[in-house]
Amino acid sequence: MATTRQWQLASRPVGEPTAENFDLVTVDRPEPDDGEVLVKTLYQSVDPYMRGRMRDAESYAEPWDVGDPMEAGVVGEVLESEADEFAAGDVVTGNLLWAEHAVADADELQPVNPDLGPISTALGVLGMPGVTAFWGLLDVGDPNPGDTVVVSAAAGAVGSVVGQLARISGARVVGTAGSDEKTEWLTEELGFDAAINYKETDDLGSAMAEACPDGIDVYFDNVGGPITDAVWPRLNVHSRVAVCGQIALYNETEVPTGPRKLAKLIETRAKVEGLLVGDYQDRWGEALERLSTFVQEDEIRYRENVVEGFENAPDAFLGLFEGENIGKQLVKVGERGD
Amino acid sequence: MATTRQWQLASRPVGEPTAENFDLVTVDRPEPDDGEVLVKTLYQSVDPYMRGRMRDAESYAEPWDVGDPMEAGVVGEVLESEADEFAAGDVVTGNLLWAEHAVADADELQPVNPDLGPISTALGVLGMPGVTAFWGLLDVGDPNPGDTVVVSAAAGAVGSVVGQLARISGARVVGTAGSDEKTEWLTEELGFDAAINYKETDDLGSAMAEACPDGIDVYFDNVGGPITDAVWPRLNVHSRVAVCGQIALYNETEVPTGPRKLAKLIETRAKVEGLLVGDYQDRWGEALERLSTFVQEDEIRYRENVVEGFENAPDAFLGLFEGENIGKQLVKVGERGD
Repeated sequence: MATTRQWQLASRPVGEPTAENFDLVTVDRPEPDDGEVLVKTLYQSVDPYMRGRMRDAESYAEPWDVGDPMEAGVVGEVLESEADEFAAGDVVTGNLLWAEHAVADADELQPVNPDLGPISTALGVLGMPGVTAFWGLLDVGDPNPGDTVVVSAAAGAVGSVVGQLARISGARVVGTAGSDEKTEWLTEELGFDAAINYKETDDLGSAMAEACPDGIDVYFDNVGGPITDAVWPRLNVHSRVAVCGQIALYNETEVPTGPRKLAKLIETRAKVEGLLVGDYQDRWGEALERLSTFVQEDEIRYRENVVEGFENAPDAFLGLFEGENIGKQLVKVGERGD
Repeated sequence: MATTRQWQLASRPVGEPTAENFDLVTVDRPEPDDGEVLVKTLYQSVDPYMRGRMRDAESYAEPWDVGDPMEAGVVGEVLESEADEFAAGDVVTGNLLWAEHAVADADELQPVNPDLGPISTALGVLGMPGVTAFWGLLDVGDPNPGDTVVVSAAAGAVGSVVGQLARISGARVVGTAGSDEKTEWLTEELGFDAAINYKETDDLGSAMAEACPDGIDVYFDNVGGPITDAVWPRLNVHSRVAVCGQIALYNETEVPTGPRKLAKLIETRAKVEGLLVGDYQDRWGEALERLSTFVQEDEIRYRENVVEGFENAPDAFLGLFEGENIGKQLVKVGERGD
């Protein structure tokens, strides 16, 4: 019988995840039942939110069980189809597994149109991160021309799109990132007005004040922690904060503490809202359409950081917490039409 | 020349304010110019937000200067009028001074209709605290029938109205307060479903969970600090938090710290908004009209805690931080028609 490999959760991390939390296991390759499709993984996504699912606590998504394969966004090729919607050779995307092959219900998959761009973008700028950026910025952040928009983790898959959409909206855009290579990419290539390398900045508050002389109207928060502490005191009256991620805190073993901030909201009547892309399921297509137009017009640029080889998927994931990726972090698992 | 007395800011408090921060000064009684009115104070309000104005820091209102008279909501009687809008003997309300007499522009005063209720209510349930509660709950909190609404400082001028409006909206209402006398008032008289005496509760989190078995849909936050820490973990998906006050933190001398909470917003997509009644200037009348109807129908009840004598105004203010007041804290300064 044919086999496939999958990464299973070996143990729950305490603090920073390590390679020991992952098990590479060879299993029987599953076969599609009626209405199902067998997908061969071409690209697998690794994302910060996955850290939450390794934890033994209910959140917006169920925790993964130890000994089970982990889930991931995948772009893959249909090898066998028992569903009318797809045929062998089709390229599809969906939430599948950290696996070389997986079976899925046809209605959990979307077709990927290779004419729109490289198929890998269905996991990045034209996928979940892009849609997160799009509705998070436009619906929650709601930038106006002349506003100052700050985005943290600005060189990441979500942040880089947020900043460019803000620029297109006519806002002044300031990003934070963790290397000079990243901040240069933001200001030289993506049109950010300013970028702060937080790892080389002693006084984040002063750096933020200097980069935002008129205060901050929109903050798209991907990181939490000290960068967020530097932003909040500079929020303007009736500003908006979209809380998308808190990656600086995901590996804490104790309840993280920090300055209490809520009084600032009375002063400013700022609005702070959490953001989850799943809430925009029915507006997904609208976002993709506009994002792909922006990409085709070179108004939005993107990068992908591709790690080769399925066996390196955990390393690619762990690298997210070291800030190694510029743009979308992907794992290349297989070749099309092999 | 006639004189009057006023309380001036003697010095800025460090931490908890004390009697030394206030100076009782006799000054010439001012005379009204064209378009102005001389008002004799009958009732003066003391409010937690005044702590912010004693501080030397810009916020939503200018700080008071040391050596200047402090401002306060006042209900008073017109003694002399140089304005067409008012005549001697009229009862008016406005933002005047901690003073026995003050002069104001006629357009900064509103008439008080004694037929609507005791004139002192123009500083409480039918004044700024009532309007704060009304729009803060209905516009920001937006409770639905069956929702669980938690309000802190629930026996205060704002909180007691918030809780009753939430009850009228069909919500389950839970309040926190600092004495058994207060919690009994909430549940026995005001129709709260549950009330927590936080001073007698070892484990606020468990008490909150017990009082809110279906989680929390709306939190009207008057206090911040540990009570707020007990509420946030129980916020439901798409819940709303109105931040109206943070009295637990106003006397801190260092930046207060506490558990970082923002990740909860991603899990719940909760919306947190700061609240300032001044933003509702043009909807003030609508709120007053509905509040006075509720009061007349005995749907909303209120209490006033009246300290007699202008010389006791600082004590009345300091008592706010000890949680001494049930309902609206007032100072009775003069008699009508003396």
